[in-house]
Amino acid sequence: MSDHNQQILLARRPEDVPTEDIFEFRDIPINELEEEQVLVKTLYLSVDPYMRGRMNAGKSYVEPYAVNEPISGAIIGEIVESRSKELKVGDKVQGFLYWQLYNGVNASAVRKLENTSVPLSAYLSVLGMTGLTAYFGLLDIGQPKEGETVVVSAAAGAVGSIVGQIAKIKGARVVGIAGTDEKIAYLENDLGFDKGINYKTTTDLQKALEEACPDGVDIYFDNVGGTISDAVLSLLNDFARIPLCGAISSYNSKGNEDLGPRMQPKLLKTRSLIKGFIVSDYRERFDEGHQELADWLSQGKLKYEETITDGFENVPQAFLNLFTGKNLGKQLVKVSDPSNRDR
Amino acid sequence: MSDHNQQILLARRPEDVPTEDIFEFRDIPINELEEEQVLVKTLYLSVDPYMRGRMNAGKSYVEPYAVNEPISGAIIGEIVESRSKELKVGDKVQGFLYWQLYNGVNASAVRKLENTSVPLSAYLSVLGMTGLTAYFGLLDIGQPKEGETVVVSAAAGAVGSIVGQIAKIKGARVVGIAGTDEKIAYLENDLGFDKGINYKTTTDLQKALEEACPDGVDIYFDNVGGTISDAVLSLLNDFARIPLCGAISSYNSKGNEDLGPRMQPKLLKTRSLIKGFIVSDYRERFDEGHQELADWLSQGKLKYEETITDGFENVPQAFLNLFTGKNLGKQLVKVSDPSNRDR
Repeated sequence: MSDHNQQILLARRPEDVPTEDIFEFRDIPINELEEEQVLVKTLYLSVDPYMRGRMNAGKSYVEPYAVNEPISGAIIGEIVESRSKELKVGDKVQGFLYWQLYNGVNASAVRKLENTSVPLSAYLSVLGMTGLTAYFGLLDIGQPKEGETVVVSAAAGAVGSIVGQIAKIKGARVVGIAGTDEKIAYLENDLGFDKGINYKTTTDLQKALEEACPDGVDIYFDNVGGTISDAVLSLLNDFARIPLCGAISSYNSKGNEDLGPRMQPKLLKTRSLIKGFIVSDYRERFDEGHQELADWLSQGKLKYEETITDGFENVPQAFLNLFTGKNLGKQLVKVSDPSNRDR
Repeated sequence: MSDHNQQILLARRPEDVPTEDIFEFRDIPINELEEEQVLVKTLYLSVDPYMRGRMNAGKSYVEPYAVNEPISGAIIGEIVESRSKELKVGDKVQGFLYWQLYNGVNASAVRKLENTSVPLSAYLSVLGMTGLTAYFGLLDIGQPKEGETVVVSAAAGAVGSIVGQIAKIKGARVVGIAGTDEKIAYLENDLGFDKGINYKTTTDLQKALEEACPDGVDIYFDNVGGTISDAVLSLLNDFARIPLCGAISSYNSKGNEDLGPRMQPKLLKTRSLIKGFIVSDYRERFDEGHQELADWLSQGKLKYEETITDGFENVPQAFLNLFTGKNLGKQLVKVSDPSNRDR
């Protein structure tokens, strides 16, 4: 094991679309472990759109990142030193840790991964926060019924791709909105979506949606906000449900510039529901969601895609890719190989 | 009984704020009753903001009124002729009937009013659709808890005034928004609201709301939409609930001119819920609501105000008053005196 450690700091808050210079790499030592601590070598780390919100100073649903402090997020790692009886060297674990090559933490801060029949990275995608986000948002708020029409924005993303597939499992008609022809082909040919719409090349999104949703829209799983959502909202059926999961089109806009048609008249006419949520609202039901997702996965009913960038030095670029639509499925960074080659 | 009958037609669809010339009076005969029919003399009729929506051609949650056809709405009447065994001359009834001096209808189209301990007009206000709207919107969607803060727009109106009083019964802090100092005094002094805000004379509504809601807003009962709602939405607490009952600020605006800050980022950050509804969504629970409202009324816990305009010829003006903020509480029109003086 090397004793070289490195971390990525938030050097300054982004003003608009984030750029590489908001990040800074810093070399740090690896401290001696205290009792009950373990040293976790980062194997994979997750970059996620919600992190953009935490880079602002204002209150969001999680605390903002501090300037000049390391960024944290979901990480899969391997125990390389242990002063805890709970975890031994070679164990694979998951936790919310700093963006560092190594994290020395209390054993209780990480969770051991027991199921070794799926690739490690799946714990950051389909079986991780994004899979659970899709599961609870669609099933608890959306409540799809057989024959209903479900529209998903950012449909080829880590959450959207799972939303669409669960909706198909539940017997719905599924229309996905995404931003490249490659993604549309992936939705229609690989994931079984009934229709994909490329919002970047479609001149009249409204009309394309009308054609793709001849019976209107019963559920809109909203990952983006902005003008795409304006168009979908105009097609709502009575008693439609909108799980509000992301507003990536607003994350980078400054305050009150984000104007659009007011939603109230349409929501009132159709008696529809919008509900914002984050996955941790469902913390107490994670086991249920995890189990059903794992079942669907093992039955071949769920496919997932990962865009895995190689190398800790490329974490900033992997994060920036989230805002340029370059990733298909869950964007991850592979930081190190497992040392335990038997695994 | 006179054999003179008269009705009010929708002469043309309003383009913006309605004006008196959209209405037309027409003399019509009183036809012979068929078997099972009754002749209902109109005593009181209700004019309501939702009717503005029905005057547009587009689909709303109820069918649009037809041009050159009589307008219909909630009416309290008295049976003056009967060919039905169910109803006898002198009975007081309630129904959705045409704006006419007399309606000849099947007995099954009206409901007999049994409880004679409350004034007849109450069946069009606190015990009618507006009282039930307040009841189900606040309790089913809003679900107020003791100590929470409830904000109500159009607070001195027929719905808003009941919403605020039920919220007080449930132990909430209640802030009402209305448009005249007389209404504010009524909310604070007569109805027990904790605070009233006159949005027309307050220069900084946002700041006034912040001061009135030091602990933020848990429930916003939205009767108006528009900029008032924009201001309230900025103060939402986590897991806030917004029963969406009316959007009177949008009824008169033409299509896509009604722009405002997009709500998605705020709803997402606070994981809040908005749900549009109309009272008929709760049809199966009307008895429950009616009973509890009547109980509170008889216990002196609910006060209600009616603005009663006199005379069928003044129905158009009474309707137009809804859009100029002239009415306090429920706006009704008294069309005739009961013939049965014993009542």
